Amino acid sequence: MFESAEIGHKLSKDEYKKIVPKLRADLLDAQFELSKNGKFPVIILISGVRGAGKGETVNLLNEWMDPRNIHTHAFDNPSDEERERPPMWRFWRALPPKGRIGMLFGSWYTAPIIDRVFKRTDAKAMLNSIEEINHFEAMLAGEGALVLKFWFHLSEKQQKKRLRALQSDPETSWRVTDRDWDFFKKYRRFYEISEETLRRTSTANAPWIVVEGANPEYRSVTVARTLLDAMRKRLKAAAAHTPTAAIAAAPITRPVDQANVLKGMDLNQKIDKKAFDKRIDKMQRRLALATRDPKFAGRNVVCVFEGMDAAGKGGAIRRVTAALDSRLYHTIPVAAPTDEERAQPYLWRFWRHIPRKGRFTIYDRSWYGRVLVERVEGFCSEADWMRAYSEINDFEEQLAENGAIIAKFWLQISKQEQLRRFKEREKTRFKQFKITEEDWRNRGKWDAYQDAAADMIERTSTNVAPWTLIEANDKYHARVKVLETLVRLIEG
Amino acid sequence: MFESAEIGHKLSKDEYKKIVPKLRADLLDAQFELSKNGKFPVIILISGVRGAGKGETVNLLNEWMDPRNIHTHAFDNPSDEERERPPMWRFWRALPPKGRIGMLFGSWYTAPIIDRVFKRTDAKAMLNSIEEINHFEAMLAGEGALVLKFWFHLSEKQQKKRLRALQSDPETSWRVTDRDWDFFKKYRRFYEISEETLRRTSTANAPWIVVEGANPEYRSVTVARTLLDAMRKRLKAAAAHTPTAAIAAAPITRPVDQANVLKGMDLNQKIDKKAFDKRIDKMQRRLALATRDPKFAGRNVVCVFEGMDAAGKGGAIRRVTAALDSRLYHTIPVAAPTDEERAQPYLWRFWRHIPRKGRFTIYDRSWYGRVLVERVEGFCSEADWMRAYSEINDFEEQLAENGAIIAKFWLQISKQEQLRRFKEREKTRFKQFKITEEDWRNRGKWDAYQDAAADMIERTSTNVAPWTLIEANDKYHARVKVLETLVRLIEG
Repeated sequence: MFESAEIGHKLSKDEYKKIVPKLRADLLDAQFELSKNGKFPVIILISGVRGAGKGETVNLLNEWMDPRNIHTHAFDNPSDEERERPPMWRFWRALPPKGRIGMLFGSWYTAPIIDRVFKRTDAKAMLNSIEEINHFEAMLAGEGALVLKFWFHLSEKQQKKRLRALQSDPETSWRVTDRDWDFFKKYRRFYEISEETLRRTSTANAPWIVVEGANPEYRSVTVARTLLDAMRKRLKAAAAHTPTAAIAAAPITRPVDQANVLKGMDLNQKIDKKAFDKRIDKMQRRLALATRDPKFAGRNVVCVFEGMDAAGKGGAIRRVTAALDSRLYHTIPVAAPTDEERAQPYLWRFWRHIPRKGRFTIYDRSWYGRVLVERVEGFCSEADWMRAYSEINDFEEQLAENGAIIAKFWLQISKQEQLRRFKEREKTRFKQFKITEEDWRNRGKWDAYQDAAADMIERTSTNVAPWTLIEANDKYHARVKVLETLVRLIEG
Repeated sequence: MFESAEIGHKLSKDEYKKIVPKLRADLLDAQFELSKNGKFPVIILISGVRGAGKGETVNLLNEWMDPRNIHTHAFDNPSDEERERPPMWRFWRALPPKGRIGMLFGSWYTAPIIDRVFKRTDAKAMLNSIEEINHFEAMLAGEGALVLKFWFHLSEKQQKKRLRALQSDPETSWRVTDRDWDFFKKYRRFYEISEETLRRTSTANAPWIVVEGANPEYRSVTVARTLLDAMRKRLKAAAAHTPTAAIAAAPITRPVDQANVLKGMDLNQKIDKKAFDKRIDKMQRRLALATRDPKFAGRNVVCVFEGMDAAGKGGAIRRVTAALDSRLYHTIPVAAPTDEERAQPYLWRFWRHIPRKGRFTIYDRSWYGRVLVERVEGFCSEADWMRAYSEINDFEEQLAENGAIIAKFWLQISKQEQLRRFKEREKTRFKQFKITEEDWRNRGKWDAYQDAAADMIERTSTNVAPWTLIEANDKYHARVKVLETLVRLIEG
């Protein structure tokens, strides 16, 4: 992948001077269009070898364009808030919103490559990272982001020359550290690992662009032109009539025998008040104790509650939180996204609430809205909710790898029981506000929601994050089962 | 202040059982109203002595109300991201949005009181903290927040008894640490320092409510009722016709001789292109060097650019950023607030971008919008922009105390020069988008804006954060003066 970036590409200073004024003007125009259009973000990764002009190029782009709409992020050592979350959390929080350009130095590629070069990880771990990255970038592309990945390359000879030149100039000598020479000693290994990484992550949606870094005029114009062309192409496509994304995958069809995991549930399981009081009390004590265990400080808990309207999510959540110190948990009721959330990939608004170690986040409805309400109501295209299954699995896998305990509950009630609860709620004073016209409308689509839920459970019940189905016609049974499951997961 | 919280307040279990059902229902209703109304946040501080039932009470409130609209925050040791910002930053980021309830354990009172008890600070520093707190809470009240400050008290005897009881029960013994006993040994000193602090911070807008903590039924109902009454009263006031806040202060009048700091400026100062190139180059080099100095890693820089439309803010900013590594700065163009920002006090959207150490944040327009555009256009009431002067001074003082270098530039051009630039911009291709109808409208209010700017400069030019007036009819002169000022400030 690097061969053509060692052939000594060059642009003369005269040509450069001729090209630049129009290029700058065009870039500014495109940037203005992007911000006016506001439909997609531009994510630019700046990677490559030391001394190849990464910083200079980004500074130049900031100079040429309007720096106010560019977010440049350098990822040094993670902060302690970042270290307590999955590695990708820090990148999620740095993603530019739609209409903006984000330039990321030291992206999600840095740690996997360096760890592999210094043999802190093995080939299998590397492949795993690469797969994760490919999934992540496919998600970004699926969400409409324009992803540009620049790799600044220098041949071994060029890099040595460049580092020496920087070192001998008193104004730039500070830039060359011992670490740079340590890295340089491993040039060949870096070359091989990077080459493999680039090859395996150069996808149709997010191909690598390797730029020879030796000649400043060449590399600046190359990067700027690539960026300009990509922005123009995307803006033009956005302006044209966009047909709904076609999807090649076979549609999900109902099992011919109409059976599914939900239909097989015995919803009439119940326990009496006395047994409930005893068991819930016992479980709440165990939950309280488990969260005080010193071991618990190193883990975090992500709870997801989903279910049909009036299935008893709120009541079950309150039985959980009643056992917890309120300083340890946040409950996130999933409502309409804010405008900052709408300017990001749909998972962003859930990532931002991922708890740090020793804490709970309880989602009252969750990212599964994508494959439930958004699917059923047609708020997103089939292509969008179809890809969501694997995106969600990736997300939860990252949480689990980081040590999170993931508890996902589907509360199932019968259609008759829902009707009974709706009517009861309309009569009861404190619960009045809980029944809206939307609830009645959703009820009208009962079967579609049930199908979507069955598909969801089938496709997102994984080893690391299985669904627990809760028979919820009887609230006592439901709450005890939720508590017992959670205690079992936390006690390990 | 604590006398009446040592008289053995009590509520029998029977009475408690009679009161609670209606109290819960009323609280839920009020909370629902609050979230529907969405006009103000409820900020509840939970403070007081160990063992007085703070945690229990908050847990109970979470149980009684809808925990999904309550944000409970416990402030332990600050994270490294928090340590790199002024101490108040962590509290700003935890403020609940309008329509929500925030319960803060370990508020802005904790550090001042503990530091003073252990004599890490002297009486003067304590008074200083108290003044800062009073200003901060007055700002919260001015922004419409309902602030409730609960102090949970126990007499020395009660506390000893309580700690012993906790310790002897195997289920709660983990809660009593050596630190608690260390604190208990200083009971009298805590008592005195707390008493003084409460006395000096019990204001009309945010009075302290001291709650005797010994009897669980008494303290729970007391806190819940206080909260309920406060929410109801405020909701009722919000529902009623609200007249524009009256302001007792004398109005700001123009100086009788019409002279002001802006009129005294010699706007015709200029330098030629050759001198400009030489001086700007020199200053950019010095700026680049200064930011690479190891000392710089311990400081942060906050730049504010304000000025009439077309005064050259963007151009000046670009001359600054051109000298900086793009990894070191963020430029924040101040546009319409997002809905998350609108749900917070107006300074919130600036606090969130405060740079960490070794970084720059450059605000292209800023919090001064409050006393410029919002004042002139009547977007906020006179009372609001009048209080903004001191709120802004407080804000900048906190930045400075935390080691920030604050550079505030007012770019002044003449009315004729603005007209020339507007016309020129309409002709030039790349700058076309910069002239909007709003610009022409603002120009119509030239004098009002100039008066507002003169008042602003007079009232917010402080020792720690003085304004630098930039004569900007000549862009070369303006840019050089900006750079020179900034370099002088950073080189110290």
